[in-house]
Amino acid sequence: MRRINTFVFYPLKRLLPHIESPEDLKKIPLYELPKLAQELREFIIDIVSTKEGHLGASLGVVELTIALHYVFNTPNDKLIWDVGHQAYGHKILTGRKEIFETNRQLGGISGFPKRTESEYDDFGTGHSSTAISAILGMAMASKLKGDYTKQHIAVVGDASITSGMAFEGLNHLGVTHVNALIVLNDNAIGIDPSVGALKKYLTNVKAGTAKDENIFECLNLNYSGPIDGHDIKALVKELERLKHVEGPKLLHIITTKGKGLKQAEEDQVVYHAPGKFDKLTGERLKKSGQNEPPKYQDVFGHSIVELAKKNKNIVGITPAMPSGSSLKFMMDQMPDRAFDVGIAEQHAVTLAAGMATQGLVPFCNIYSTFLQRAYDQVIHDVALQKLPVIFCLDRAGLVGQDGPTHHGVFDMAYLRCIPNFIIFAPMNEMELRNIMYTAQMGLNNPIAIRYPRGRGTNIDWRNDFERIEIGKSRCLKEGSEIAVLTIGHIGNTIADLIKNLDGSEKVGHYDMRFVKPLDKNALRTIFTEYKYIITVEDGTKIGGFGSAVLEFANKEGLSKPVKIFGVPDQFVEHGTIPETHQLAGIDFDTIHSHIQSTLDQCE
Amino acid sequence: MRRINTFVFYPLKRLLPHIESPEDLKKIPLYELPKLAQELREFIIDIVSTKEGHLGASLGVVELTIALHYVFNTPNDKLIWDVGHQAYGHKILTGRKEIFETNRQLGGISGFPKRTESEYDDFGTGHSSTAISAILGMAMASKLKGDYTKQHIAVVGDASITSGMAFEGLNHLGVTHVNALIVLNDNAIGIDPSVGALKKYLTNVKAGTAKDENIFECLNLNYSGPIDGHDIKALVKELERLKHVEGPKLLHIITTKGKGLKQAEEDQVVYHAPGKFDKLTGERLKKSGQNEPPKYQDVFGHSIVELAKKNKNIVGITPAMPSGSSLKFMMDQMPDRAFDVGIAEQHAVTLAAGMATQGLVPFCNIYSTFLQRAYDQVIHDVALQKLPVIFCLDRAGLVGQDGPTHHGVFDMAYLRCIPNFIIFAPMNEMELRNIMYTAQMGLNNPIAIRYPRGRGTNIDWRNDFERIEIGKSRCLKEGSEIAVLTIGHIGNTIADLIKNLDGSEKVGHYDMRFVKPLDKNALRTIFTEYKYIITVEDGTKIGGFGSAVLEFANKEGLSKPVKIFGVPDQFVEHGTIPETHQLAGIDFDTIHSHIQSTLDQCE
Repeated sequence: MRRINTFVFYPLKRLLPHIESPEDLKKIPLYELPKLAQELREFIIDIVSTKEGHLGASLGVVELTIALHYVFNTPNDKLIWDVGHQAYGHKILTGRKEIFETNRQLGGISGFPKRTESEYDDFGTGHSSTAISAILGMAMASKLKGDYTKQHIAVVGDASITSGMAFEGLNHLGVTHVNALIVLNDNAIGIDPSVGALKKYLTNVKAGTAKDENIFECLNLNYSGPIDGHDIKALVKELERLKHVEGPKLLHIITTKGKGLKQAEEDQVVYHAPGKFDKLTGERLKKSGQNEPPKYQDVFGHSIVELAKKNKNIVGITPAMPSGSSLKFMMDQMPDRAFDVGIAEQHAVTLAAGMATQGLVPFCNIYSTFLQRAYDQVIHDVALQKLPVIFCLDRAGLVGQDGPTHHGVFDMAYLRCIPNFIIFAPMNEMELRNIMYTAQMGLNNPIAIRYPRGRGTNIDWRNDFERIEIGKSRCLKEGSEIAVLTIGHIGNTIADLIKNLDGSEKVGHYDMRFVKPLDKNALRTIFTEYKYIITVEDGTKIGGFGSAVLEFANKEGLSKPVKIFGVPDQFVEHGTIPETHQLAGIDFDTIHSHIQSTLDQCE
Repeated sequence: MRRINTFVFYPLKRLLPHIESPEDLKKIPLYELPKLAQELREFIIDIVSTKEGHLGASLGVVELTIALHYVFNTPNDKLIWDVGHQAYGHKILTGRKEIFETNRQLGGISGFPKRTESEYDDFGTGHSSTAISAILGMAMASKLKGDYTKQHIAVVGDASITSGMAFEGLNHLGVTHVNALIVLNDNAIGIDPSVGALKKYLTNVKAGTAKDENIFECLNLNYSGPIDGHDIKALVKELERLKHVEGPKLLHIITTKGKGLKQAEEDQVVYHAPGKFDKLTGERLKKSGQNEPPKYQDVFGHSIVELAKKNKNIVGITPAMPSGSSLKFMMDQMPDRAFDVGIAEQHAVTLAAGMATQGLVPFCNIYSTFLQRAYDQVIHDVALQKLPVIFCLDRAGLVGQDGPTHHGVFDMAYLRCIPNFIIFAPMNEMELRNIMYTAQMGLNNPIAIRYPRGRGTNIDWRNDFERIEIGKSRCLKEGSEIAVLTIGHIGNTIADLIKNLDGSEKVGHYDMRFVKPLDKNALRTIFTEYKYIITVEDGTKIGGFGSAVLEFANKEGLSKPVKIFGVPDQFVEHGTIPETHQLAGIDFDTIHSHIQSTLDQCE
């Protein structure tokens, strides 16, 4: 697979164009590496400014990326980038420079490390805090095979290392005798600023005010640092030294997220993924946003503040997503009642459960894909005790460019089997507001409210709150032959396409709202009055909403043909949200065409 | 609810009979507490020796239990017992002495703290490491309400505190200013001996060889200890002091699991839950075990050793269940290839994924209920990357006396929606052996092999290994009217009951083996040839195997009445396994009666 490469080093030339692989990189003399770092940084800014993507994290590790590939023998040595937002430089240096502009586009390279994309991507990442466990598995494999020369490196951020899974990995690593190096990339920020006691401790370490023994030494790791992660010569020197230190070790480096682009350094949260920007000035090219419906996350953020002003028992919890969830609005206005607990979904859920036992009304806002991290806590601490925690699952459904690591498509299946749960999906902003209002008035059950990434459908969305009857669907349009049952925001696509059907008067449309409990009365009527039933959801067909309808119909002996539209039994790649809907076969055209042909058969 | 109590203290009398609540306890002078401890210990031994249950953990915290209720004002002060195995003394002192003999029995008290059972059980436990998050939620609620007098205490073992979730809780706790006390009950053992770097560190602390700063102080907690957890006066004194220390604090106490019963102290693993024993000598009343089929866990344990002798790439992983999973057999014989990683399911799964990338063949053995802790890792690190990790899910189905926290009934639903997964349930020992053999020969997919707590069906079970075709069911008995499709061990109940049917020749029985992929050819034939279909599983009806059959039939347009037997949409209480099957309506009589009446209608 390696191309024959005749590159010879010319000091006056630009360096990056000649680097197709880490082998090329190794030919550059040490003193030229800062120049390469500058070029790599510019290259990233160039592309991301027009193609969008994650910016700040990769800018922060430019020197580290170069140093790692300079010192270590990748891909023979194993290298894992935790989370993977910071791996752009790695991709560019490992043969993907030419196709980097396809980043996060349909058919292009992934925004995260991905095993099938390159032999240099040793482990796919996306969710945080997996790298220590994975690298330890690789290192233990090397040891078992008697390969004592191989190095195993994981780069983990300070926000990511506070997550429980990372601690589990460190706790095991410390009693193994493997060649593993954890690089703690300490920039004091994840997507939002890091929080928690460990962050505070690391701040003390950096300030030189920590005491004698280091927390990582307590865990039996060979600790070194902190060193300046932008001093590429120091990095190379230290990594060279560590290469010859046996056993598990941790190198603590200090970096600045967004390094090299002024605005990105100064506004690290926004420049995590700034959208398009001017590559010279750094100014963001603002999308108007005016005269557009609001993002669902903002509807949540504004509405919880409104509700919390009236209901003193409401509290808000986010595991490290204050900006992404817009819980930040409440954190700003009511800092004693809204909490960022760090990347700690498990803790977030059981914390909420503990609060609920004392009569508080916790809104626990977690992205659908990240609630997978707290599945046991949802079952064991919340549902089993029937505690009325209100889960707001943002980014439910297909999320677009972040791709298969981040699609929130399993939630309906994995929550539906849990007793005591209510599962609701709002079709628009008002529905979201009303279910939040309903939930905080006091339910006897936990509830999951799932809504998608992106915008709603209404410019005027600040309706007066209205209570929603639990388990009650809405008939949006009567029909005679075909009933389409939808759940959540995707219902808007269906409402649109029905208008465009030849024979649309025969098609009924029901916004079922509740995945659980189902509106049984409505279903009985629908199964009686219509000839064909179609269900539409943006989650897995297996075990999801359509499956719930089948279970109900079977139990009641209601026999009608049911066509289920949902995410098929495969991981859906990255692309825009409409593209991913198309990949999953739940787009306008596919469903329109199916209904039209069914209608035509009705003739 | 409090009874009027006229108890007056008489020093010569026995103390325990007069204690109905912590109020009574508080009337006893400090110098008499060791005597009470002795009585409480005897009471626990008395009952557990005949009624069975968890012994060692509760014996180890007798002094702590008394001290906590002596010093603190429960139930106004909040008290959570992590895991809950150690809470027997707590139950006895808080009004459940008279009914303690019903422990773990159907209709009796739970073996774990349970909110609906007592106002003194502030939070239900069962799975480990939840207590810190829950108590922090309660403490934050108190703070928000302006109640600064209330104390909040969580008792956490040293095995439990290594789990990631506990770390997440500590990391948050350290930056709050709440009244919370974590009592670290350090006995160097969970169910099996503790492992990992933190355990090593705690050993150094106890030996006085740790350096200046303490790991918990690094996390900004007020640390005190270690103190002797069996010195009740020292405990009371220290707890009294801590009661007046504001903010989050951690008290490190050293105890001996099984304290007070010689055999339990000496063989802590066996006496965790020793079954019946002689309360005076401590000798276990051995069940014969001879001429009985083996436990499934032992079939796993012996078979992995057999396979690993031939396949050098096989490794075994257990998160803290070497005895319970019988991976101990391999750990004893091949210590470099079988690993106990501690209570760290998340780490266990991604460690296995890392190993699989390097060509190892990891068997990751996790109880079904505990795999819930690693759901995201199963999706994100294993299935998405299509890594051939072999999951052995022990204790799948209803587990009996451990009750709803431990039933392994969700796995089929939560795994079935994940692409790339194979899900298999063996009906007997040979099937388990053969699928293990098949899996280690090399699959292109991850596989989950789920089998129940308890014994198989065959005395002679060490068959020669045979390869199983993926997705292929077995016809156990042909029929004509009714086809019963079973999955896993519960198929044996069905085979038995079919023999007892009037008209059994009309009933076909199919061991479907694979929940995923389904045997589509067999299903097509069955739906064509039979009039009625019945599915039987010991997991949730919602989203489970029966639901998979419905989805398939609907997709293929195969319309036949399907009756699904499985666990209904409720948490099933504790009892013996047959009793819990009855509660769930999946017992012999219920299913027999249904099939018989269906048969009678066929006449």
